[in-house]
Amino acid sequence: MARQSYQPKIPVALMGNVHIAEGEATQSVANQEDIKKLFPNTYGMPVLTIEAATGELARVETFNIGIILSGGQAPGGHNVISGLYDGLKKLNPENKLYGFLGGPIGLVEHKYALLTSDTIDEYRNTGGFDIIGSGREKLEKPEQFEKGIEICKQLGIKALIIVGGDDSNTNACVLAEYFLQNKVGIQVIGCPKTIDGDLKNDQIETSFGFDTACKVYSELIGNIQRDANSAKKYWHFIRLMGRSASHIALECALQSQPNICLISEEIEAKNMTLNDIVDRITKVIVARANVGLNFGTVLIPEGLIEFIPAMRRLIEELNDILADNEEFNTLEGDDNKREYLKLKLTPESSDLYRSLPRSIARQLTLDRDPHGNVMVSLIETEKLLIEMVSKKLAQLKASGQYVGKFSTLSHFFGYEGRCALPSNFDADYCYSLGLTATRLIAAGKTGYMAVVRHLTRPASEWVAGGVPITMMMNMEHRNGKMKPVIQKALVDLNGAPFRHLEEHRAEWAEAATCYIYPGPIQYYGPSEVCNQPTKTLQLEHGC
Amino acid sequence: MARQSYQPKIPVALMGNVHIAEGEATQSVANQEDIKKLFPNTYGMPVLTIEAATGELARVETFNIGIILSGGQAPGGHNVISGLYDGLKKLNPENKLYGFLGGPIGLVEHKYALLTSDTIDEYRNTGGFDIIGSGREKLEKPEQFEKGIEICKQLGIKALIIVGGDDSNTNACVLAEYFLQNKVGIQVIGCPKTIDGDLKNDQIETSFGFDTACKVYSELIGNIQRDANSAKKYWHFIRLMGRSASHIALECALQSQPNICLISEEIEAKNMTLNDIVDRITKVIVARANVGLNFGTVLIPEGLIEFIPAMRRLIEELNDILADNEEFNTLEGDDNKREYLKLKLTPESSDLYRSLPRSIARQLTLDRDPHGNVMVSLIETEKLLIEMVSKKLAQLKASGQYVGKFSTLSHFFGYEGRCALPSNFDADYCYSLGLTATRLIAAGKTGYMAVVRHLTRPASEWVAGGVPITMMMNMEHRNGKMKPVIQKALVDLNGAPFRHLEEHRAEWAEAATCYIYPGPIQYYGPSEVCNQPTKTLQLEHGC
Repeated sequence: MARQSYQPKIPVALMGNVHIAEGEATQSVANQEDIKKLFPNTYGMPVLTIEAATGELARVETFNIGIILSGGQAPGGHNVISGLYDGLKKLNPENKLYGFLGGPIGLVEHKYALLTSDTIDEYRNTGGFDIIGSGREKLEKPEQFEKGIEICKQLGIKALIIVGGDDSNTNACVLAEYFLQNKVGIQVIGCPKTIDGDLKNDQIETSFGFDTACKVYSELIGNIQRDANSAKKYWHFIRLMGRSASHIALECALQSQPNICLISEEIEAKNMTLNDIVDRITKVIVARANVGLNFGTVLIPEGLIEFIPAMRRLIEELNDILADNEEFNTLEGDDNKREYLKLKLTPESSDLYRSLPRSIARQLTLDRDPHGNVMVSLIETEKLLIEMVSKKLAQLKASGQYVGKFSTLSHFFGYEGRCALPSNFDADYCYSLGLTATRLIAAGKTGYMAVVRHLTRPASEWVAGGVPITMMMNMEHRNGKMKPVIQKALVDLNGAPFRHLEEHRAEWAEAATCYIYPGPIQYYGPSEVCNQPTKTLQLEHGC
Repeated sequence: MARQSYQPKIPVALMGNVHIAEGEATQSVANQEDIKKLFPNTYGMPVLTIEAATGELARVETFNIGIILSGGQAPGGHNVISGLYDGLKKLNPENKLYGFLGGPIGLVEHKYALLTSDTIDEYRNTGGFDIIGSGREKLEKPEQFEKGIEICKQLGIKALIIVGGDDSNTNACVLAEYFLQNKVGIQVIGCPKTIDGDLKNDQIETSFGFDTACKVYSELIGNIQRDANSAKKYWHFIRLMGRSASHIALECALQSQPNICLISEEIEAKNMTLNDIVDRITKVIVARANVGLNFGTVLIPEGLIEFIPAMRRLIEELNDILADNEEFNTLEGDDNKREYLKLKLTPESSDLYRSLPRSIARQLTLDRDPHGNVMVSLIETEKLLIEMVSKKLAQLKASGQYVGKFSTLSHFFGYEGRCALPSNFDADYCYSLGLTATRLIAAGKTGYMAVVRHLTRPASEWVAGGVPITMMMNMEHRNGKMKPVIQKALVDLNGAPFRHLEEHRAEWAEAATCYIYPGPIQYYGPSEVCNQPTKTLQLEHGC
């Protein structure tokens, strides 16, 4: 496959001999005392910047490293590994790279593969995590750590690279701290991955995979918009993956300029109800119908439901009421269950529950995860909104306030983008992250996340370095306990990307068409076609 | 947008002066006497081949033409128009191109736009039909024809180009015949369009749009397969657009090598039942589970349901029973309706009806088109199969014959591909079709479809020409009458594309992975990446 021969572009500083510059001592974003107590050995370390140094790249003593992919797939994971591999071999051709299989469990269960050039070459610039697989088990317990130490010693592994989201990187730091406390002599370096785009902060400009996934979804949204504007007869309701934050929906909106894009964070901040949302959508549909445009697009972030304050309260109440509720489970028939819940819910939640379409109300009581919680991601919000908007429009039609036709189609995009072939941006970025990790390891660093910054510049000018993971942490409630975690970044309503949407959305909503049709990701051709970062990054950096 | 500056590749013969070579007199594929009687003026014309001729391209007398887009969108429509425009201006810069708006209705209602270079340049190499819009009205009646003549005379239109599928091209020929019979002096040229790929025969190698749409769907299927093979926990059931024939599903299977691909034509030929299909899928799932592979992909053609003989009988019976059935409509509750149908259906259909999941059974009685027929395309076959396969697996698990896990995700791809940016193939093919049409018009031809052949060769070697539309016709039952229509091409079970699937599918089903991940359509870069025709075309031509 031609794509495999692409040579990723990298920062100049990573090409030869390097000097690692240390900044000032750091502190965590919040709860400094607590975090410091939990991470006495990895707290307060300086931010690192990798600078080009004169002289030949010195061959270092042989060392081996182990790589673990954690959590959901994101385009570019294979390039982190090929960057690691090439960086490692450049430092010393005798160095070895081991991949732990199926995620963190591979370390604990001693399942691994030695990665050779044949394997690496097959996976360069490809999507997916299939080279070694991924998994969702968490590395949290000392027993797990000890099993890990055992296999690392056996394989001569000097450092582990953990590629993951906020949780996995938090765990990477816990592991680094454990190894230091116990003088194990194994380093741990994290790497920022998630298509959701919610692992970002002052130090991390973007997580890898976000760029490619958003471009794939925007290609599809653009195609659908072109269809809508050609056929002129459908409203397309499109739900987009992204567990909690609305970064994906926002970026896709910036790329494709749909008629409507809901942003969960705004809905929460404005304390909007489901009816408010339905009203907002309905207004646009009516306004377009008034000028003869009975078609359009609506982007819906997957996490929406939980950001509607009243819905979240309803869901929390249902979670409480239905936990191990034998009585409810033995009730027969839908109506009896509805009656039962009507009495148990608070009046406000009861009203909301009964206002929902039956199919959605049923979903809220049926699909539950192993912890007994509603599986929000399985709720087809796009269909819920279609049903409620339909009803509202029927009322408006009856009273003569709406004269259009409302035919709809719904879509959900998620699995279409998580394993796409990485864009040049993600291919370059991930490969550079892998190279960066090897330099941090060679310098003996641990408890750091590999970072590459200034990403809106040409790749040669990117700046690589390391950020102490503790610097990004605060304390949060998790399963009833206070835990140190990396702060998840929600969409900043004062940030340039959201402000851009806010400024333009009235125009996008009602104009005959402001649609943009981005087309598929290109790997060859003009740089403005194939090397652009996300609109989010460009707006955040004032490009 | 960079894509607009792409210069489509064209056959050498279309570059300069041409000679139009005439073949032998032709006859229709069947019902020769009937067709000849209906088309006395357009029957039996020779196949035309456009050959390069020496000498300068002579400037012809000024003439204007009108273009009509008919039916569903297909990538490349805008390039047919830009090819027409450029071809027309080359013959005489004074020539004018009019676009009728919103499909055939634009001709009848005299809604049109003069297409200028500014407009054309904006739409070159783009997807969609939004330049002038499309529509599904049929040109069939003399009153419509007369309204058309009126506007053509007014605008000085010498010829109409009708871009459409089998029905629209049939109507183009009816119109050509009418104009000849009435000595109106307006020519009509058809152009083969449909993503479904079912407008093909000995003269037409492929309809435009099929290439791009299949590549978009295959990109997504590939991405999903990479995800399946990385996460290793989901079976993805993917339904693919294509009203009736399974060409799209087959081509996507050839491009992506899924574990299972259903082909409606095979199911019909083998007289398979829904249970047979469920068994076939289940067998593969069990075999993969036995070697620890609890994931996979199943491709399902949209038209499947109607190709299952027993299902088709059930649907026909339901259409009959429910036509204007006031009694049924007043029945309250699901159970009463089921009881009612149980008594009215034949025993075989009644058994089948009751064996269906309730949600599907309900769909069969609810969604009906304006003619009272079940809207088969709205039936979520992928969910029907998931439900039935789940049940079957649960039985096998209970009896110890299945030990795996079965988690599923479903997808439907259609609107994502109909308006995609055309591939280089479709951009070149459509532009060449447009150019070809101008040469046929200049030569005074009518009742022809523009064709371009030898499409697996480089574009410069393609052979352009014209095929008498009557040559592709036979007589078929439509709405209770015998009508002349262009034969629709179903998947040929003896053809090389299906045979390739048949030979390899056992291996694709059970191997750890034979998946291919085609990635997004590329416009730049190596020719083997960006200029390949479909696998179907390649296999049919022995490439």
